[in-house]
Amino acid sequence: MSYELDLDVAVHRLSADRFAATVTDRWTTVAQPNGGYVLGIALNALRACVPFPDPVTSTTHFLRPAKPGPAEVVVDVARIGRSIATASGSLFQDGEEVVRVLASFADLGASTPTYRTATPPEMPAFDAMDATWNVRPDAPNVAARYAHRMMPGALAWLRGAPSGEARKLGYLAFRDGRPFDTFSLPIVADSLPPSLPNVVPTAFTPTVELTVHVRARPAPGPLRASFVTRELAHGFFEEDGELWDEAGSLVAMSRQLLRYYPPRSAPPL
Amino acid sequence: MSYELDLDVAVHRLSADRFAATVTDRWTTVAQPNGGYVLGIALNALRACVPFPDPVTSTTHFLRPAKPGPAEVVVDVARIGRSIATASGSLFQDGEEVVRVLASFADLGASTPTYRTATPPEMPAFDAMDATWNVRPDAPNVAARYAHRMMPGALAWLRGAPSGEARKLGYLAFRDGRPFDTFSLPIVADSLPPSLPNVVPTAFTPTVELTVHVRARPAPGPLRASFVTRELAHGFFEEDGELWDEAGSLVAMSRQLLRYYPPRSAPPL
Repeated sequence: MSYELDLDVAVHRLSADRFAATVTDRWTTVAQPNGGYVLGIALNALRACVPFPDPVTSTTHFLRPAKPGPAEVVVDVARIGRSIATASGSLFQDGEEVVRVLASFADLGASTPTYRTATPPEMPAFDAMDATWNVRPDAPNVAARYAHRMMPGALAWLRGAPSGEARKLGYLAFRDGRPFDTFSLPIVADSLPPSLPNVVPTAFTPTVELTVHVRARPAPGPLRASFVTRELAHGFFEEDGELWDEAGSLVAMSRQLLRYYPPRSAPPL
Repeated sequence: MSYELDLDVAVHRLSADRFAATVTDRWTTVAQPNGGYVLGIALNALRACVPFPDPVTSTTHFLRPAKPGPAEVVVDVARIGRSIATASGSLFQDGEEVVRVLASFADLGASTPTYRTATPPEMPAFDAMDATWNVRPDAPNVAARYAHRMMPGALAWLRGAPSGEARKLGYLAFRDGRPFDTFSLPIVADSLPPSLPNVVPTAFTPTVELTVHVRARPAPGPLRASFVTRELAHGFFEEDGELWDEAGSLVAMSRQLLRYYPPRSAPPL
């Protein structure tokens, strides 16, 4: 438990349903603490209240920007069943609710009939990929937590030459070597660079809601990630993600709904 | 407001955050009231508590089977912001929580830059499609609420000849002609026939969680639906859906996580 993530999402139980935590400044993006990190704190409190290990489905609504400093999580268990447990958690800072999470936990240890039509994305080897996202001179704190490797096209917008495609492929890994487990998957599903700037000028794209289905326990090694946006309209767009482990298992499917704010007076691409 | 759906999801406000309702027996499947219908009651209470019309993202966890009879919905508003409002709702019957919904509402009336790579599914005309699902001799009550039309392959399992493909296309419509609006989209996203029996023998597939993103206000006419399952493993599978209107707009994206129970001692297909 000496990995950065586990230290930084630690919760201290105050009572049956209340937990104290600290939002550190180590996962901060340009604007605010990364949403995946903040939901990780709430999810950590939730898992202390349920008897099953795997967060098979978690939905987080982002209500306000988090900020480094103290936080409190209040948990409300909906039901603990024979094989599924469901609970909500609200993370508060300064008396204001910052995120609300609704999640179900189960045990993914069972083997059952398998059907699959999805296939893992094919990519060059980890070390042959683009490391720019985490090692830019102006990278924010959160970049130092990760060792992502992206296909070059994913970051074309960062180099001033948008690719025209809101799709990205890459590898995910923690910089400190923390192995992935089912707890960490909803967190890292929110760690990739944006890709909408590859198709439309973009000022700010806050996440309204992120749902992650955890489908299997990850094998050791980096994850392969495939994310795509298919629709931007009426001020909202979605981002769908798949995370695959090195053994070729689909370990998580994510979908988030984000708001779109164009740059002031910028022409559409 | 004389349409069946609106009558049957009606809520009566008891106080600022408590609503009385009746789960009717008109939306009952073989096993229990349809999940989409039950979440509709909770969503109806939520929308009475927020100032924006469109449920842009709603997540429902199904905790226990609902049953026809009285119900109460308790709403907990998380935040009402300038352009987004977020709230939870719990529907109780006999003192037990049946569903918990977490949803954000906004206004989809704004026009903003649009980007789209998805395309509406191509299908024969409405009347050239298979009406079996709603008119079977043994169809449950809920079938009389809908006038769905499916591509024949979607119902191959029902005729004893599974198609081998967990994908279905079809049209959705209410039998009584109720027009679609953004409120009804999360409800009808749970109204299609199952397709997993086309790939693996299936006894019972309860939904754990359903998230629906409402992306646009639907034009008049039936909706085109495209649903697919890509992964069954460890006792869970997902179903991803798209709903398109007659004007060619993507009006909703849905994803649900379901549990898989095989028939007793049936061999895998």
